[in-house]
Amino acid sequence: MSVFVRVPRGTGVSRVHMRWVRDGEPVFTSLKVDRQQNGDTWWRGELEAHNPVTRYRFLLGTTSGVRWLTAFGLTAYDVPDSTDFQLVAYPPAPAWARDAVVYQIFPDRYARSPGADVRETPDWAVRASSWDEPVTPGPDATRVVHGGDLDGIARRLDHVTALGADTVYLTPFFPARSNHRYDAAAFDRVDPLLGGDRALERLSSAARERGLRLIGDLTTNHTGDTHPWFAERPDFYYSKPDGGHVSWLDVPSLPKLNWSGPELRHEFRAIVQKWLAEPYGLSGWRIDVANMTARFGADDWNHEVAALLCRAVLDARPDGLLIAEHGHDATGDLDRDGWHGTMNYAGFTRPVWCWLRGESVPFDGFLGRPEDLPLLGAESLVATMTAFGSQMSWRSWEASWQLLGSHDTARIRTVVGDSERQHVAAGLLFTLPGTPMVFAGDELGLTGGGNESARVPMPWNRPDTWDTTTLGRYRDLIALRKSAPALRRGGLRWVHADGDIVVFLRESTEQTLLVLAARAPAGQIRLAGLPAQAVLENLYGGAQPLHIESDGSTVIDGYGPTVQVWALP
Amino acid sequence: MSVFVRVPRGTGVSRVHMRWVRDGEPVFTSLKVDRQQNGDTWWRGELEAHNPVTRYRFLLGTTSGVRWLTAFGLTAYDVPDSTDFQLVAYPPAPAWARDAVVYQIFPDRYARSPGADVRETPDWAVRASSWDEPVTPGPDATRVVHGGDLDGIARRLDHVTALGADTVYLTPFFPARSNHRYDAAAFDRVDPLLGGDRALERLSSAARERGLRLIGDLTTNHTGDTHPWFAERPDFYYSKPDGGHVSWLDVPSLPKLNWSGPELRHEFRAIVQKWLAEPYGLSGWRIDVANMTARFGADDWNHEVAALLCRAVLDARPDGLLIAEHGHDATGDLDRDGWHGTMNYAGFTRPVWCWLRGESVPFDGFLGRPEDLPLLGAESLVATMTAFGSQMSWRSWEASWQLLGSHDTARIRTVVGDSERQHVAAGLLFTLPGTPMVFAGDELGLTGGGNESARVPMPWNRPDTWDTTTLGRYRDLIALRKSAPALRRGGLRWVHADGDIVVFLRESTEQTLLVLAARAPAGQIRLAGLPAQAVLENLYGGAQPLHIESDGSTVIDGYGPTVQVWALP
Repeated sequence: MSVFVRVPRGTGVSRVHMRWVRDGEPVFTSLKVDRQQNGDTWWRGELEAHNPVTRYRFLLGTTSGVRWLTAFGLTAYDVPDSTDFQLVAYPPAPAWARDAVVYQIFPDRYARSPGADVRETPDWAVRASSWDEPVTPGPDATRVVHGGDLDGIARRLDHVTALGADTVYLTPFFPARSNHRYDAAAFDRVDPLLGGDRALERLSSAARERGLRLIGDLTTNHTGDTHPWFAERPDFYYSKPDGGHVSWLDVPSLPKLNWSGPELRHEFRAIVQKWLAEPYGLSGWRIDVANMTARFGADDWNHEVAALLCRAVLDARPDGLLIAEHGHDATGDLDRDGWHGTMNYAGFTRPVWCWLRGESVPFDGFLGRPEDLPLLGAESLVATMTAFGSQMSWRSWEASWQLLGSHDTARIRTVVGDSERQHVAAGLLFTLPGTPMVFAGDELGLTGGGNESARVPMPWNRPDTWDTTTLGRYRDLIALRKSAPALRRGGLRWVHADGDIVVFLRESTEQTLLVLAARAPAGQIRLAGLPAQAVLENLYGGAQPLHIESDGSTVIDGYGPTVQVWALP
Repeated sequence: MSVFVRVPRGTGVSRVHMRWVRDGEPVFTSLKVDRQQNGDTWWRGELEAHNPVTRYRFLLGTTSGVRWLTAFGLTAYDVPDSTDFQLVAYPPAPAWARDAVVYQIFPDRYARSPGADVRETPDWAVRASSWDEPVTPGPDATRVVHGGDLDGIARRLDHVTALGADTVYLTPFFPARSNHRYDAAAFDRVDPLLGGDRALERLSSAARERGLRLIGDLTTNHTGDTHPWFAERPDFYYSKPDGGHVSWLDVPSLPKLNWSGPELRHEFRAIVQKWLAEPYGLSGWRIDVANMTARFGADDWNHEVAALLCRAVLDARPDGLLIAEHGHDATGDLDRDGWHGTMNYAGFTRPVWCWLRGESVPFDGFLGRPEDLPLLGAESLVATMTAFGSQMSWRSWEASWQLLGSHDTARIRTVVGDSERQHVAAGLLFTLPGTPMVFAGDELGLTGGGNESARVPMPWNRPDTWDTTTLGRYRDLIALRKSAPALRRGGLRWVHADGDIVVFLRESTEQTLLVLAARAPAGQIRLAGLPAQAVLENLYGGAQPLHIESDGSTVIDGYGPTVQVWALP
């Protein structure tokens, strides 16, 4: 395939070589000038997909010496292969995923149907006194049932479509003994408390009518201890000093699955496929605790299991999606024939939080991390995004879910402290590469200082509490993304990142957009290296058109907090 | 096991946490102060070797915010796991390897025995007209036989011991149709042209008498096309468009082995073990083209083969060594149960060359790389060494062979241009971590501008051409290394790196050494962060004792080119 390097004018680049690794050995070829366009020189070379994954980088001969160009950027000295670009020959994530906006629903807290009111309370559960009962963290928090159900979700899908999201990700709907249901008691049926299998059928129909996709949530690392497998099957680890079972983070009710045998693999293939098929028709799975799945001690079948699950998905529906939960660094697990992408807490959520956190962040770190969340400048936001992004293929980054929070974290509103900074966070979410995922309720400005306290019921009956300004901004930003191919499929070029302000370009063949996000007023800033001599129209944020000089520079008023998007005509 | 973090005073660190990854999930523990020592605070934590490889890093709470501490250094923002420290539970390289100095011999060019003169010239070979016939690169270069043999090497072992090296690495001694013998025609006997099996026995005895070890060189990626396997066995790739065989870098005489079947694996196990056993008693193997071995298209059994070879080595002799040739980035292939270390061209040779290259470097790049070798400052030397070193375990770095050149590159003397800069290069080779490997002849100042032209015969009969100054320096530096535990087994701390000068500390429990290397006069430099208030004795280089102030600072005269080593009393 052809590979291009676009070199801006004035950079003194007179030679471009490509180094690619073939069967473990670097091979060099020289690129040729393909064309000049808008002052840029496009160099072209040919890359062979001889191995399933081909790492490549460029060596630029410039008037000021040679430079490596990798996904990390330019370096004058040698760096390891880990940030090389990657050409991956395995099937990519489905095309629709690149354009998707995902809306995450925690069923117990989303909405109740009339049917929910008459269901018996299971023995493990404590009924909330009302839908509005505040969520209180603590040892019994996971037993409190607010009673949301799948028919309740179906009744509220117009809210999702009005927001502009097109994909609903449901946290688990399997029977369990907690409101989060990650302690599955079965994988072959829908929890009756959520309405049972028929309710999922109805939800699926209602979603389909609106052009919405559904994504399920499957735990492959462990089951609940009431799952019949735990009593009947050998596929668990029993290596505690007392002979007891191994469990997720030592929570005894979550026994850890042992993937050594073929039977369990066969079972999971069937489970994955059952819910993708009619009448349920899920479009894919988010895999819970994917990072730990099939890893224990000297055992590590994580890649085999990821590949097995991916094959199961694609055999059931060729446009299926498989997303891995991963809380720290998923880069080593992507770009094979398994997970299409990850939940990008490490490369997106964390750096955004560190840039936008408020004065006081009243929660215990992030996913169990000690020390307060640091407050860092925009240069650190870019450094972290680049560090993680450069160690995976661009397509894995694009297929990964970018998120400001989830049922496992504090709410973004609580992290940043006010609606203006939440606006900046949302601005990044919907204008940077990757699939935006919104945790339901964020769009209403809901708050919550930790994972359990973030799982607040949707205040349908108290519209006066809705932050309609934030809701409007989410709608507008999603609409912008939907209308702008460069935001969904364009490249990314950082233009400026310093303290309170970050500016970047999103470019596709159709469109060039300039995005500015500022967490605070930042004074005037001078940008350089932009497409030369143009007047950019403002598409979002309300600023004046932007005049770029003939040398590619411009001056922007550094007001803030704000999000602005301009388009090259 | 206990893990310690040493924090210098005055750095404002009041909390130290450790993050380690267990079964794919990060776990945090807090460290406690273990002791105060020489103004430093030692923090202690416990790390469990639950997985074969455990990645860990530290989070420091300081008066100026939190910092991650990874093998890359300190960062204020999040970085991926690739530079985490690594605790590897697989068997390490043998203890002797950490103390070894390796001397590489290319048998055809090292020394002739009287027996060599009477051997018949094989049909493929062209006899050099004399031992001193200049080496000329070109298509027939590999056919020119100077006639060095194993008995010749045995007669010159006193040169090796006088130099101070203790391990002789022989490039292949198997029958072949070239002077380099990487096109093996057999693996089960020694080339008669080198004296045959009995000559290896004699060499082994002579080495043992002197306390020298021998390392062999085995090609696992391919054989020569005259190897009977190529005619008899199915274990090769035949996927060229014309049905022909696949070969190493498309050189038809080097057909590529296909490791899919068990028979080939069994054969190689036997080969590995045969030569480690008596009467040959090799101490280990350097594996040729390890980076490509068992990699072709979608096939990748590299790790399996490395593990198989390592098991074969260790089963034959528990103190055996297995070193992988790798020309670019071996970090992804180390720290498993295979290769103990690599030939560190990428993390050592290249950065040293880029720092010390002379005015004109009359050869075509490095291992086929386009563009001239850049001339970079010491900060780039440190950046590259850190970039590669931080992506492998410390023990893999220590077990890897650091080298200034080999039979596959230009000679260091030609790269740097003069004996003074070669001295600086040798200074780095023998004072930095990792096993130093000397390509025979470098110690005499031999020159050569490419791989074939670097394979010059040793000028035994022309002692007037020897650079005895360089020889003396090599002997002195090796003697220093042998006498200084901190150089062989100590930690590494960069103190200063800027332009013409680099300064670092090597520290072990017994000893603290300060090393300075300068490629040119650099003016006075001020160092900080040294062990406080001491007078350091000069151990090498002839400089005055070094007075360190009570604040840990000192001023050094930046003369050069030079290598200086001082010891804390």
